[in-house]
Amino acid sequence: MTATTIDGRAVAAKVRAEVARDVAALPAPPGLATVLVGDDPASAVYVRSKRRQCVEAGMLDLHRHLPGDIEQSAAAAVVDRLADDPRVTAILLQLPLPPQLDAAALIDRIPPEKDVDGLTESSAGRLALGRPGLRPCTPTGVLALLDEHGVALAGAHAVVVGRSDLVGKPMAQLLLGRDATVTVCHSRTRDLAATCRQADVLVVAAGVPHLVTANAVRPGATVIDVGIHRTNAGLCGDVDAGSVRAVAGALTPVPGGVGPMTIAMLLRNTVAAARAH
Amino acid sequence: MTATTIDGRAVAAKVRAEVARDVAALPAPPGLATVLVGDDPASAVYVRSKRRQCVEAGMLDLHRHLPGDIEQSAAAAVVDRLADDPRVTAILLQLPLPPQLDAAALIDRIPPEKDVDGLTESSAGRLALGRPGLRPCTPTGVLALLDEHGVALAGAHAVVVGRSDLVGKPMAQLLLGRDATVTVCHSRTRDLAATCRQADVLVVAAGVPHLVTANAVRPGATVIDVGIHRTNAGLCGDVDAGSVRAVAGALTPVPGGVGPMTIAMLLRNTVAAARAH
Repeated sequence: MTATTIDGRAVAAKVRAEVARDVAALPAPPGLATVLVGDDPASAVYVRSKRRQCVEAGMLDLHRHLPGDIEQSAAAAVVDRLADDPRVTAILLQLPLPPQLDAAALIDRIPPEKDVDGLTESSAGRLALGRPGLRPCTPTGVLALLDEHGVALAGAHAVVVGRSDLVGKPMAQLLLGRDATVTVCHSRTRDLAATCRQADVLVVAAGVPHLVTANAVRPGATVIDVGIHRTNAGLCGDVDAGSVRAVAGALTPVPGGVGPMTIAMLLRNTVAAARAH
Repeated sequence: MTATTIDGRAVAAKVRAEVARDVAALPAPPGLATVLVGDDPASAVYVRSKRRQCVEAGMLDLHRHLPGDIEQSAAAAVVDRLADDPRVTAILLQLPLPPQLDAAALIDRIPPEKDVDGLTESSAGRLALGRPGLRPCTPTGVLALLDEHGVALAGAHAVVVGRSDLVGKPMAQLLLGRDATVTVCHSRTRDLAATCRQADVLVVAAGVPHLVTANAVRPGATVIDVGIHRTNAGLCGDVDAGSVRAVAGALTPVPGGVGPMTIAMLLRNTVAAARAH
């Protein structure tokens, strides 16, 4: 068997088109305030992509670039002004922040209604309690890929590898909310391959290149690779695609799988925030 | 093999004694405001036990009994006054509430610092993000039983049956925070027995009498029964103790297992809330 490729670029393009239609139907354009602190090159690239796609979808780009040596109180004041600004319907604080800043404290100044990254304490609580709210973009992007490819989740066994606040933990809660039986594995899991082999749906977000190989995949399983790593041989994921492709039923490529979905879901969250505004 | 009995009454008594010592060492006694709405007999029994144990531990009993037909705004005003009252270091809204009241909205008026049931959106968010905060009492009671009996959690496979906001979901997060590999099962799980048989630690909080029988238990596993049901043959749990006792390594009885721990952990939360006050 050779796994079907789950084309994240195609699904993301579809989501972006839907978002652009939704934006056009709104009485006023949503306004996304990306906040970049300092000059980390990778963060600058991400923020540029987010701003570009935001404009392409017809939304307002209300970007703020803050100096890398800004103090906590000054950064907090910027977030507070954005929170109060009615043109700003969505706030995204690009992570990581410079070490002198308390990221959690700054994130929690974002009103949950504008928290399009779904990272505040309120958003995490709403997800945990199954209440309506804005969800983190990468795990909702994974769900969108699974839905687009008709992967049944109710009653399926989903195994999530990784337990970060950004991906693993919210992913597990979202899959549980879709009636999957959910297992969360991590660096302390004793027999990772045996546990992963139970998965009908395997989501790997461990941050370890090629962690999951063919012996950890049940024949026919759907495998979602959230990892992305730059190596001498090019980009690779947390999944050893070379061997897994021969066993899995479907697999996301790296690049072009989950990555494009994250910004697409950010745009969708920005529309949702504007609607609730 | 016959399973060791995990004696919740004994562990709860130990916790209560620790709490009483902690209370005596505080500059002022913690004040627990239990709020009972209406005259549901089971709720009245629970609240009476909580108040009695609160007084026995040296804390202030600041109980409020509200009429069963109270309106949302009046109930909200009571919670707000308790939130503002410096003598009240802890607020517990006894559930369920009469149908005219929006329980979630009332719970979320409790400041997270006084939320000794750990049920607000903030408390759920703090747990989900692994931040310090007050945790729901039944799952922390289960952890205390496991710790008291020296059950290793790091690297163990823990299976939680049930996904309620009160027990199953926070239980899974707490076990994950203790480095267990965690699986959550529920009514949509396909082969419950096979999934449960993987557990080194099996926590059953499904609300279904005798749901888990011996064929769902790995020999030597630790089994925690959160259920309690009144039947013609007396009280029973979600676990079929008669058959499971012969397979499990350790088992909580019903009654006298998890039940007594819930109020003990409420008292411990009340001390923690007073310390943070």
